[in-house]
Amino acid sequence: MKKVVLAYSGGLDTSYCVKYLSEEMGLEVYTALANTGGFTPGELAGIEEKAYALGAKKHVTLDVTGEYYEKCIKYMIFGNVLRNKTYPVSVSSERTFQALAIVRYAKEIGADGLAHGSTGAGNDQVRFDLCFSVFAPEMEIITPTRDLKLSREEEIAYLKSKGVERDWSKMAYSINKGLWGTSVGGKETLNSWEYIPGEAYPSSLEKEGEEELILSFERGELCRVNGECYTDKIEAIRRVEALASAWAIGRDTHVGDTIVGIKGRVGFEAAAPLMIIKAHELLEKHTLTKWQMYWKEQLANWYGMFLHEAMYGEPVMRNIESFLKDTQRYVSGDVRVLMRPYCFELLGVRSDHDLMDATFACYGEENKAWTAEDVKGFTRMLSMPLRVYHAVNEKSKEEL
Amino acid sequence: MKKVVLAYSGGLDTSYCVKYLSEEMGLEVYTALANTGGFTPGELAGIEEKAYALGAKKHVTLDVTGEYYEKCIKYMIFGNVLRNKTYPVSVSSERTFQALAIVRYAKEIGADGLAHGSTGAGNDQVRFDLCFSVFAPEMEIITPTRDLKLSREEEIAYLKSKGVERDWSKMAYSINKGLWGTSVGGKETLNSWEYIPGEAYPSSLEKEGEEELILSFERGELCRVNGECYTDKIEAIRRVEALASAWAIGRDTHVGDTIVGIKGRVGFEAAAPLMIIKAHELLEKHTLTKWQMYWKEQLANWYGMFLHEAMYGEPVMRNIESFLKDTQRYVSGDVRVLMRPYCFELLGVRSDHDLMDATFACYGEENKAWTAEDVKGFTRMLSMPLRVYHAVNEKSKEEL
Amino acid sequence: MKKVVLAYSGGLDTSYCVKYLSEEMGLEVYTALANTGGFTPGELAGIEEKAYALGAKKHVTLDVTGEYYEKCIKYMIFGNVLRNKTYPVSVSSERTFQALAIVRYAKEIGADGLAHGSTGAGNDQVRFDLCFSVFAPEMEIITPTRDLKLSREEEIAYLKSKGVERDWSKMAYSINKGLWGTSVGGKETLNSWEYIPGEAYPSSLEKEGEEELILSFERGELCRVNGECYTDKIEAIRRVEALASAWAIGRDTHVGDTIVGIKGRVGFEAAAPLMIIKAHELLEKHTLTKWQMYWKEQLANWYGMFLHEAMYGEPVMRNIESFLKDTQRYVSGDVRVLMRPYCFELLGVRSDHDLMDATFACYGEENKAWTAEDVKGFTRMLSMPLRVYHAVNEKSKEEL
Amino acid sequence: MKKVVLAYSGGLDTSYCVKYLSEEMGLEVYTALANTGGFTPGELAGIEEKAYALGAKKHVTLDVTGEYYEKCIKYMIFGNVLRNKTYPVSVSSERTFQALAIVRYAKEIGADGLAHGSTGAGNDQVRFDLCFSVFAPEMEIITPTRDLKLSREEEIAYLKSKGVERDWSKMAYSINKGLWGTSVGGKETLNSWEYIPGEAYPSSLEKEGEEELILSFERGELCRVNGECYTDKIEAIRRVEALASAWAIGRDTHVGDTIVGIKGRVGFEAAAPLMIIKAHELLEKHTLTKWQMYWKEQLANWYGMFLHEAMYGEPVMRNIESFLKDTQRYVSGDVRVLMRPYCFELLGVRSDHDLMDATFACYGEENKAWTAEDVKGFTRMLSMPLRVYHAVNEKSKEEL
Repeated sequence: MKKVVLAYSGGLDTSYCVKYLSEEMGLEVYTALANTGGFTPGELAGIEEKAYALGAKKHVTLDVTGEYYEKCIKYMIFGNVLRNKTYPVSVSSERTFQALAIVRYAKEIGADGLAHGSTGAGNDQVRFDLCFSVFAPEMEIITPTRDLKLSREEEIAYLKSKGVERDWSKMAYSINKGLWGTSVGGKETLNSWEYIPGEAYPSSLEKEGEEELILSFERGELCRVNGECYTDKIEAIRRVEALASAWAIGRDTHVGDTIVGIKGRVGFEAAAPLMIIKAHELLEKHTLTKWQMYWKEQLANWYGMFLHEAMYGEPVMRNIESFLKDTQRYVSGDVRVLMRPYCFELLGVRSDHDLMDATFACYGEENKAWTAEDVKGFTRMLSMPLRVYHAVNEKSKEEL
Repeated sequence: MKKVVLAYSGGLDTSYCVKYLSEEMGLEVYTALANTGGFTPGELAGIEEKAYALGAKKHVTLDVTGEYYEKCIKYMIFGNVLRNKTYPVSVSSERTFQALAIVRYAKEIGADGLAHGSTGAGNDQVRFDLCFSVFAPEMEIITPTRDLKLSREEEIAYLKSKGVERDWSKMAYSINKGLWGTSVGGKETLNSWEYIPGEAYPSSLEKEGEEELILSFERGELCRVNGECYTDKIEAIRRVEALASAWAIGRDTHVGDTIVGIKGRVGFEAAAPLMIIKAHELLEKHTLTKWQMYWKEQLANWYGMFLHEAMYGEPVMRNIESFLKDTQRYVSGDVRVLMRPYCFELLGVRSDHDLMDATFACYGEENKAWTAEDVKGFTRMLSMPLRVYHAVNEKSKEEL
Repeated sequence: MKKVVLAYSGGLDTSYCVKYLSEEMGLEVYTALANTGGFTPGELAGIEEKAYALGAKKHVTLDVTGEYYEKCIKYMIFGNVLRNKTYPVSVSSERTFQALAIVRYAKEIGADGLAHGSTGAGNDQVRFDLCFSVFAPEMEIITPTRDLKLSREEEIAYLKSKGVERDWSKMAYSINKGLWGTSVGGKETLNSWEYIPGEAYPSSLEKEGEEELILSFERGELCRVNGECYTDKIEAIRRVEALASAWAIGRDTHVGDTIVGIKGRVGFEAAAPLMIIKAHELLEKHTLTKWQMYWKEQLANWYGMFLHEAMYGEPVMRNIESFLKDTQRYVSGDVRVLMRPYCFELLGVRSDHDLMDATFACYGEENKAWTAEDVKGFTRMLSMPLRVYHAVNEKSKEEL
Repeated sequence: MKKVVLAYSGGLDTSYCVKYLSEEMGLEVYTALANTGGFTPGELAGIEEKAYALGAKKHVTLDVTGEYYEKCIKYMIFGNVLRNKTYPVSVSSERTFQALAIVRYAKEIGADGLAHGSTGAGNDQVRFDLCFSVFAPEMEIITPTRDLKLSREEEIAYLKSKGVERDWSKMAYSINKGLWGTSVGGKETLNSWEYIPGEAYPSSLEKEGEEELILSFERGELCRVNGECYTDKIEAIRRVEALASAWAIGRDTHVGDTIVGIKGRVGFEAAAPLMIIKAHELLEKHTLTKWQMYWKEQLANWYGMFLHEAMYGEPVMRNIESFLKDTQRYVSGDVRVLMRPYCFELLGVRSDHDLMDATFACYGEENKAWTAEDVKGFTRMLSMPLRVYHAVNEKSKEEL
């Protein structure tokens, strides 16, 4: 009998797949959940139990949170990646690492095929298919939910007919939780004018007034939160999330181009990602030169786009990672953040590598680094191309 | 006697210049204040009076607010220009338009020279010098404050010796007000760790709870505020400022590279610019394609940098303006904004040109625009370069 | 009976289509040849005759050479577009304008469908399909050659069975001629190591020694060849082609990424495009500023890529055209070119807008535009960020 | 007595400096020639002799050719760096490495100052000053030639008065030879229309007909010439130069923006750099993906600009080098080049990492990598944003 590894989440679509693949297609179904930080141990145990109840030959939990941090989140922080200046590429970047883990497991057990439960309407199908076909071109890809175009009702009826009784009632909001943020979709995000209500977000505002927080970085990576050291970066991120989400920080709506070519809209909450990225970015404004920031921005913007669009395997991504890593050499220091309800403010920075070095010169103050004559000469040379241009082309000068 | 036009603001440095230029250098001093929206009629009258009291041959107020909007603010909105992702290039962009107005006036009256009161320590000297030398290369540039390196005390003593008695006591915070934002410098911004206290900002938090606001755009320009039409765009901006500053919105600290090559830091308050730009940007996410946004961002980023660095006269700026203007053709519609203390949230968009068109297809929902087979074919072709690359270079595949 | 417009070229694939569409599918076939400059009147008459002989209901020749110049070639010259620094996007850019003309004609006559003869192996199918589906979404697209996967032999046999007897023997080289260049494919270009022999190119080396030529431009457009005025730009291009191809100039092999995701290779001859672009580019080096050239290059590179990849209809293309056009304001003057066997050299430029203006200053010579002190001050300010960086980060300095 | 290290070349300006610094300024003059590959042993011995004859306390030759290759040429090859698409940044990139070597030597011997003989009219003064001031901010910079604004005649007269008699007659062409090319300036390059005559170039056309050459690369570096291995990359470059310059290959005129802000023009001959870069670039077209090439081009263009403009010490240059090096992992293989009088042609490539892999699919030929249906689905999804855009904005569609 042929072996297939199914990317299993415990939801309706993938539950349908377990049954369908085993009973209708006669396959040996290995369910695998690749955890990138969005599940608690209790949730994972529950999912495992359900998998076996549905008839999985074997179920495994593949913990790739560490890999996800090392190969992806780290670079998103280095690059201050916010898609469309807003969205920390939360859930979408996780899919690739889940798919890669599934592929590795399938190769280990010598599977013949790979299956996932994505529908034909979204981005995830592309992320799974692309990753499967590039890294396991020898395996067949099986996607019953997409191919049969079944409605929820039909899936539920089928499962019921097979003796599977569970409460499949749909939530008002589709919540997708991960280490780097939680996405929240609802009827409001299907149009452009409505918005996700506050109650739909995973956390709630619990604080008032304001509170300071210090985030410390070492070569671009978060290393201390309020002075407390974290060798496990994932714990550090979780600590920031716990502190900041109580202020209802990091909620917004992402509007952008999906892989399937239309515009899409989704709410999200990502307190830690937003605060870490913005703090890191401020530290860079003090420790990097203008042109390092200029080029980082170009490359990181592309990096975020490709991550979002399932192109993690493009070799240019490795080249960009080399660049980003190389820029972080001196991005070390503390950043003060002020948290308030629904927002935060960056207060200041302290770093041994701060280029705003008052002993050298202080902007707007008399200093010894240059003289008035230096600036006059500088301005004369700086203006040279403009002086030539406007002298040669008198007409353009008159128009200004 | 030689005529000189002095860029006069009524402050200590330029007051010193009036006296020095006329009495020590024997020049006929024409004082000119180029108003880009930062002065009230009362302030302007006071400044005029002071100019004559100091011995100006003639004083003029040049109102270039309209020109500043048409030639600069408009394009900064089109480009969503925020220097270093934060600063709306508030005060710095005004200097160029003030300098241009001074040059035009000097040519009109046949002046022999141009004077300004900037010191040798900051950006403004470069902005004035560069603009003067490019657009009036035939005129001499005279800068007593910079050249004599006088302290405030020396300037005050000199003016006193000439019978000018005024209260020159320095404010704790140096406030620079303009249509597109107010900058706030203080002892805190001379280092990296301290921050401007709330009281130092021009406005104060007067509201609590939350309040909705609708900003409407027509081809990229703000045309209505809460449904009320504005043909005078400057009035529209002022209206937004009045509404938003009561929520203490739009305050932040800009850290960046100055023209003189060192890092600088300054507080600012710019409620209207930030809200208008962010609302405009959201409207663009709905009405422009991915690649229009991609290229706009590159060009507008450069535009903001050059504006900040006195390079408005570079011909590439005109080329970028052509591009930006061309992108705004369909950027029309309403944007809902929610104001809260210290921050605002973008709620939604309504536009005839919204590309998130549910009649075509709705992300994540079944639709008629494509089939599952289409996406499979798409993914197969999209993955082609990666499939070839990883097949040819087996080694790189193993590492993922 | 349903009407279909077929993009007809007179070759085997489209001849098959005429018969198949009319006889097997029972459609009324309107054949249309959209000429972008690659056909002589004699060739066009021959093609028309063949179309009727095959059973076309009606045949039309749509002359879009002028439109192709105005909407495409002009901008490729403004942008100095050479794909992968080599290929003038010769034939590939024509397809879109042929497709657009076909769509317009089909709408005029109220057709129900659109047909083309491209196979499933190349770029052209994407160019036709994409253009048809975007600009005539209401029409069906019919592609018998692609769908039936017929071999040449099968097509010939079918036509023979229908009484169509012609010499269909395949040429050793597949030649595709257009106004902006001729592509040459052969067995050599199917691998990476072999190359198209000299005899396979359309023209042959007829000259020896060397000869000068003067190309003159007005706002970026070619206006005179050796002093002779051309109001018809197409004639001017043809004149340059005639002069230069006698020197066997403009041959090369293009290697690049195809729309279908794999690498492709093709020989081409494009004497006029290469010489015009390179001459235009030199004129720009004299008449544009450094940053105008910098940004033109970025945008034009993208423009060429999108043209090649069937994305002419992307609105960002219109925005880029606005930018490019705006840069050409002063790109006027003469360029001297020296032709030699197989290559040419750019000798010099003469322009009223030449920014290398010796009356201002001459590089490397004493001049009055600046003093030694100016340059010292300039260098001091220019070095400021590096001086701060290396002072703050001693380690990095030691490594240099 | 104070020690000063003078960058000495043996020419008139630096000879004047030796005498002036020692006799008029009373300094102990250490002359140093930093050789980046432009001098023969005989020339170096002659220069040493002259230095002592003029009164140098000590003369040293600092051989930094290897360092220049490792830290600069290598990356220019990786980046296919041609300034303004033409100039291999020949002589200008060497100056920085000469300046760095001078600084290191000066620190070694505990010098108090650094001197160079550049005039105030060109780029070299900026390169020396900037490098000296950043990497030895504690040392004084002394530049007699620039500061005294002496004419050649005055310098000659002074030297004569000190008993130094040499033939200082100026050459018709100013030749500047280096490992990475030779620049040729003359009266013709002072204007835009004239050109350097063939005789002025260092080599002469000695061949006729045509000849093939194979250049082989290993991870982006030239490793074999016609099959012969070179561990010493400098020898490999010299070998290519010897072969190609006999065909008078690699001559052109560079027109560009100088550091001092005006346009400049210079002839150059750089047979090896041009041929190596173009061969390397072709190999990359076969071994890199489209997006690797896209981003390499952006970054390498900037790298070349900054190298040319004395900004080698900018930390972003190290970040770009990381990126470029990372891209070269699979850039290994052979490139066939055909040399002809005055030009060369790239014939083909052979590489284990060739992405134009015929076993996968061959462009334009039937293949198993995809089906017609795949391309149809692909095109449907690819066209999605355009279909939405043109459907929503009917007007823009009509205009096409």
